[in-house]
Amino acid sequence: MTEPSFSIPTIRLKPKANARAIRHGAPWVYDNELVVDRRTKSIQPGAIARLEDAERHFLALVAVNPNSRIFGRVLAREEDEQIDEAWFVAKLAAALTHRAHMFDAPFYRLVHAEADGLPGVVIDRFGDTCVVQPNAAWADVRIEMLTAALRQVTGVSTVVMNGTGRARGLEGLDEKTDILTGAIDGPIPVQMNGATYMADIMGGQKTGLFYDQRPNHAFAQRLGHGQRVLDVFSHVGGFALATLAGGATSALSVDSSAPALELAEQGAAAMGATDRFATRKGDAFDTMAALLEEGETFDVVICDPPAFAPSKNALEKGMRAYERVARMAAPLVREGGYLGLCSCSHAADLETFRNACNRGIGRAARSAQLIHTGFAGADHPLMPQLAESGYLKALFYRMMP
Amino acid sequence: MTEPSFSIPTIRLKPKANARAIRHGAPWVYDNELVVDRRTKSIQPGAIARLEDAERHFLALVAVNPNSRIFGRVLAREEDEQIDEAWFVAKLAAALTHRAHMFDAPFYRLVHAEADGLPGVVIDRFGDTCVVQPNAAWADVRIEMLTAALRQVTGVSTVVMNGTGRARGLEGLDEKTDILTGAIDGPIPVQMNGATYMADIMGGQKTGLFYDQRPNHAFAQRLGHGQRVLDVFSHVGGFALATLAGGATSALSVDSSAPALELAEQGAAAMGATDRFATRKGDAFDTMAALLEEGETFDVVICDPPAFAPSKNALEKGMRAYERVARMAAPLVREGGYLGLCSCSHAADLETFRNACNRGIGRAARSAQLIHTGFAGADHPLMPQLAESGYLKALFYRMMP
Repeated sequence: MTEPSFSIPTIRLKPKANARAIRHGAPWVYDNELVVDRRTKSIQPGAIARLEDAERHFLALVAVNPNSRIFGRVLAREEDEQIDEAWFVAKLAAALTHRAHMFDAPFYRLVHAEADGLPGVVIDRFGDTCVVQPNAAWADVRIEMLTAALRQVTGVSTVVMNGTGRARGLEGLDEKTDILTGAIDGPIPVQMNGATYMADIMGGQKTGLFYDQRPNHAFAQRLGHGQRVLDVFSHVGGFALATLAGGATSALSVDSSAPALELAEQGAAAMGATDRFATRKGDAFDTMAALLEEGETFDVVICDPPAFAPSKNALEKGMRAYERVARMAAPLVREGGYLGLCSCSHAADLETFRNACNRGIGRAARSAQLIHTGFAGADHPLMPQLAESGYLKALFYRMMP
Repeated sequence: MTEPSFSIPTIRLKPKANARAIRHGAPWVYDNELVVDRRTKSIQPGAIARLEDAERHFLALVAVNPNSRIFGRVLAREEDEQIDEAWFVAKLAAALTHRAHMFDAPFYRLVHAEADGLPGVVIDRFGDTCVVQPNAAWADVRIEMLTAALRQVTGVSTVVMNGTGRARGLEGLDEKTDILTGAIDGPIPVQMNGATYMADIMGGQKTGLFYDQRPNHAFAQRLGHGQRVLDVFSHVGGFALATLAGGATSALSVDSSAPALELAEQGAAAMGATDRFATRKGDAFDTMAALLEEGETFDVVICDPPAFAPSKNALEKGMRAYERVARMAAPLVREGGYLGLCSCSHAADLETFRNACNRGIGRAARSAQLIHTGFAGADHPLMPQLAESGYLKALFYRMMP
């Protein structure tokens, strides 16, 4: 798809809308900030428009989606910018330069949406394969152009579109997963922190592997050396395999997904660590209760649950769930051992999440030091003015003797 | 010094004071929360007292200092606890176990005050030497007992008391630095992240070296590989030597202290990196202005200034100073390069500091991604309920091409 040659539509901020925020780098325009009439409502989802302030001064080129509360996403600050394949190539090349500098091997999040200048677009790279999540209409309708640019910049042979997840629903986009080019023949082995993870691109959650936890895995690895580790909500073995790679004497992965645990076992086998690795399929809370019942304790316990508070209205309930995780996990840690608690909830800021964890530890009648606070890795950049939106938090406690 | 055998004094919370906070782990009692009469005022600084709530229920054993706004510091939760050498031994042993597990070599902050159960006490370890900062009266009067316990637990031969800094003034304690046992013969070489730092125990700032930046040095090291690095407010070469150890092509240290830069040069020499290392003595702001004037740019610029906002009433002025650092440093970073900005100000929380940095970068007409937020290392634990008190923050930006 190329831009039509006739002039693009214009949308305009209401007089009271915050034009200054847009000028200072804000990436989004909400529907209630705009003068919306029949003409603007009829703009095709994904079309490019000129955004003006109430005094008709040009602000930015935006991608429009009348079906989304985020009506406009800023793509460019110059009026004459062309949103074409060369534009995609430039954005992708800038993103690649940073990742290639930070990581030894081509396994990383290549594009992290707004902060990389591609609003709503997430691309994870697994060596010769990229998985694209075009979670905004403008990218969804330009998926071919994006794919061509991606192949040109990275040289990958396989590109998969992963069109699942909550974000697409908010944009009014269908669920759709497809191999756009190339082929996938089974899980892809991924080296991270010396561990081997099996990423199931087509069948797994999200994009098959969570790169965001890389620095927190690395921290846990230092804690786990020579220790007995429990990894709750383990998915494909994230923390368990990292600690095994770092010299843990044993690691137990708990997850409710049999396919995820099967991938974890394949990873452990690839690492030659099968004899130190065990899995236990079941509900995380039930399994923690059972372990406590059995009198088990561990040197290091890490809990990396799914997003309990994905949105603001789920915040209170979510915080009770995080508190419960902390309350149930704390008694499983021996005195002087370590407890890692993670949240990938957008709606919970660091302090809110930390308070929930502190309460849970307190209710377990344990006291602790906070020894480390970690976030997502450097391949998950943030827009500085939206940094509180950093969704991933990892808190590491030492349980006091 | 040992506790007197007669009964210890009792101090009591006012009816409106928050006894619940103390019960839930708060470490301090302020003078305005207590019933203060002639008897309580006459308690010797450093004496132990029983703290009761308004209904005369025992809350904690506290160390009292009538000369400090922090009138009481919680030492123990059990009424029959003896604050004797064995008590110090237990606290130090617990602190040591954690550090010995986390670090390959005995170079770390061994005790980080309240979070390690020794309120106001900071101990840094440099191999066979410990530097103690007894920044609260109770520890100051028990320095011999503390030293004996420290030698017993760690086996170090040299213990230095460093009685300088703002905290002692707030406690009404004199400045005093002394070798309590053993001997110091020149700077001590310290290995950290593969770099060699020269720690001048007797003549340097604080305890001769800042261990707190260890994880942020490690992150900068990854950024600096194959890059030209500028380290502003370099002290003994913190970020510069770390990046040289990580393969930086060159590093320039800027500091106003000639002795600090001399130690940095000694470190570089010990690393065999003299040919890649340069120093420039001068005011940091003046030197940044001069470098800009000379048309210099760097791939990586890191600024680690002293605390511009050490207290709440210095906050606004301090934030302007951090903004100025960001505004002056940003133009020295090439497009696509990296900028690290640090704050060790207690009074500035993460968001306040980040906003100041964001403003500075914006005023330099640069845009950036935030790629990493770091704090002090795991040898600087925090009390979980006081985690917002984490004083050290490091923000790493990538300047957009």
